[in-house]
Amino acid sequence: MQHRISKILSKTKENHPLIHFLTNYVSVNDCANLTLMLGASPIMADEKEEIEEIASLVQALVLNIGTLNVRTLESMLLAGKIANKKRIPILLDPVGAGVSRFRNEALKQILDEIQISVIKGNTSEMAYLAGYSKGARGVDANPKEQIKSKIFMEFAKKYQCLCAITGEKDFLIDGKRMATLKNGIKELSLITGSGCMISAMIASFLGGGVNAWDASLSGIAIMGISGEVAKEQNGDFRSNVIQNIGSIHQYLERLRYEEY
Amino acid sequence: MQHRISKILSKTKENHPLIHFLTNYVSVNDCANLTLMLGASPIMADEKEEIEEIASLVQALVLNIGTLNVRTLESMLLAGKIANKKRIPILLDPVGAGVSRFRNEALKQILDEIQISVIKGNTSEMAYLAGYSKGARGVDANPKEQIKSKIFMEFAKKYQCLCAITGEKDFLIDGKRMATLKNGIKELSLITGSGCMISAMIASFLGGGVNAWDASLSGIAIMGISGEVAKEQNGDFRSNVIQNIGSIHQYLERLRYEEY
Amino acid sequence: MQHRISKILSKTKENHPLIHFLTNYVSVNDCANLTLMLGASPIMADEKEEIEEIASLVQALVLNIGTLNVRTLESMLLAGKIANKKRIPILLDPVGAGVSRFRNEALKQILDEIQISVIKGNTSEMAYLAGYSKGARGVDANPKEQIKSKIFMEFAKKYQCLCAITGEKDFLIDGKRMATLKNGIKELSLITGSGCMISAMIASFLGGGVNAWDASLSGIAIMGISGEVAKEQNGDFRSNVIQNIGSIHQYLERLRYEEY
Repeated sequence: MQHRISKILSKTKENHPLIHFLTNYVSVNDCANLTLMLGASPIMADEKEEIEEIASLVQALVLNIGTLNVRTLESMLLAGKIANKKRIPILLDPVGAGVSRFRNEALKQILDEIQISVIKGNTSEMAYLAGYSKGARGVDANPKEQIKSKIFMEFAKKYQCLCAITGEKDFLIDGKRMATLKNGIKELSLITGSGCMISAMIASFLGGGVNAWDASLSGIAIMGISGEVAKEQNGDFRSNVIQNIGSIHQYLERLRYEEY
Repeated sequence: MQHRISKILSKTKENHPLIHFLTNYVSVNDCANLTLMLGASPIMADEKEEIEEIASLVQALVLNIGTLNVRTLESMLLAGKIANKKRIPILLDPVGAGVSRFRNEALKQILDEIQISVIKGNTSEMAYLAGYSKGARGVDANPKEQIKSKIFMEFAKKYQCLCAITGEKDFLIDGKRMATLKNGIKELSLITGSGCMISAMIASFLGGGVNAWDASLSGIAIMGISGEVAKEQNGDFRSNVIQNIGSIHQYLERLRYEEY
Repeated sequence: MQHRISKILSKTKENHPLIHFLTNYVSVNDCANLTLMLGASPIMADEKEEIEEIASLVQALVLNIGTLNVRTLESMLLAGKIANKKRIPILLDPVGAGVSRFRNEALKQILDEIQISVIKGNTSEMAYLAGYSKGARGVDANPKEQIKSKIFMEFAKKYQCLCAITGEKDFLIDGKRMATLKNGIKELSLITGSGCMISAMIASFLGGGVNAWDASLSGIAIMGISGEVAKEQNGDFRSNVIQNIGSIHQYLERLRYEEY
């Protein structure tokens, strides 16, 4: 499996895709830097008037609702529809799903009107989307794992997408298979936007021509492993994580991945 | 006093508050990272439509007018009023007070319509607000300290808030007492948003259940001390400052605080 | 020549100019930090209502269209016109020129209605503006250097501005002379906003009273040299680059500049 990730990294570097981000203003700089680190190029643009032309230049689209507003929601819906027409893969990061009616309805509209390739969210966001919790912080429902998997499997089938769910353990679920990733450490949640950065990586791989499953598994694994390694290093944890991503090929044997 | 700050840090970590930021897009990433570092969680959201629901989830609110526009001002006014109703403490960071009629009128409206717990600004911003200078850069009025204190005391009484004034020396003034903090070094003003980061820390403590006085004194002291220590360290000043905040308990004996 | 850059650095520190940025939300934090590092002060403000008053406080203006929208375009046009009236130098960073009609028309309007001092763009952006390529990524036209120079010379004459063109080699062209800068390394393009940061430096120098030619040459040279040195250093490339800018006087003998 680590060889597969190595190949994904090379493929993305070779294809040098351009990734269109409609994302929040909190972690946007880190997302751009990570995208560049993987050999892709980011373009951040949220003005409706230029969405269509930008879509004709790019190889993947990120819709991240972290600091969504009425104006950027319109741009996201437009970008999504055009990407669908052009068959450009779309990653959705449902930041704060469950927190407000505005976000929830925006997510509903996105999911109903746009075909998403990968939805990457944390446990509580994904639980809200899949319909077994209200999603807001602190109210994470925790049904038995088996039931949870079943609900996600159905959700993934319904929307024909892959669900990449980050948490203590990470899960990949599409309509057919499931896998767990056990890399990563709690401290990563203390870096703002670490989830957005995973999304940026997955989108870079999607844009590089990698399928949804492998792109998601790689993005999640790379962040998790980089965090683990950073914890063993001296110096600033956050900048170590980011540096480790740049030299991740050294650490890929640490991957703890199980498919079933 | 340093023991009090230690307790404040522990209390905030235990209570793990959620802090709502309506803030500028320049320093927002650093503010989010510092909030996480203190054991609180930031939520950045400026869309009016979701303000009310978010207010029902959070323990403190930051209104930072650094890159204010007509849209976000409306959101801030709404957020402030709801926070008042729900008795959530509010920190106001009047970035650039005195620089334009737009900011000045926005600040007037905020102060008139919303009950603020802590106003944290630099000397020139606070001088503008308290009414003894035009506030814009380079025109800092410098009346004698005694007169200054009296003006701030009255301002704090009028608005029933605490004024946290950063500068060469830092001041805390509420309607009843006054204190000075003498930590900190000039170089901190060379980090963009160092003031916003102090605000983020104060708000995290407020959200953690700490009173306005102790929250403000802790936020200011932590930044000042971290800067002092960073100056004695090798490497990048800015990232040393941020790392020192994460291990501030080691340095708290450096506190230079005087109440009178 | 390196002595000239030294003097430019000192002059800017002494004059401590205030620089108004209308810029993108991706690299804005880095731009603010670099501006401070050079002894200037940034003010980020994009609300139309306060543009006029801010223009009366500042010594230079940056128009960077990286994440332009309809609202901020209006603010930029207003800011540019007022800066012209007040004879404040303006730097234009045409991020993504050629990518969309929206950006292209915005650039046309800016160039037609506002007198710009320095346009700083990469080869493809500047090629689009000067009219010999469509500018979008991957379609960089590469006519012979001699023809290219002639086109830029005419463009610079027409708009009475200096063109600072970054690429493998960097070029300075105004209506009368031309120069090349051969510092810098490819890796700099892997730092998001490295171009925006060059613009922030040029604007800081312009605001410090330096002429367009010397300001542009200094900004480009400082980034290039800092990158070269960073590549020879251990640790995080990006944070090394930024630190090197802060101690650039040590490395100025590396300057490779040729005027003709």
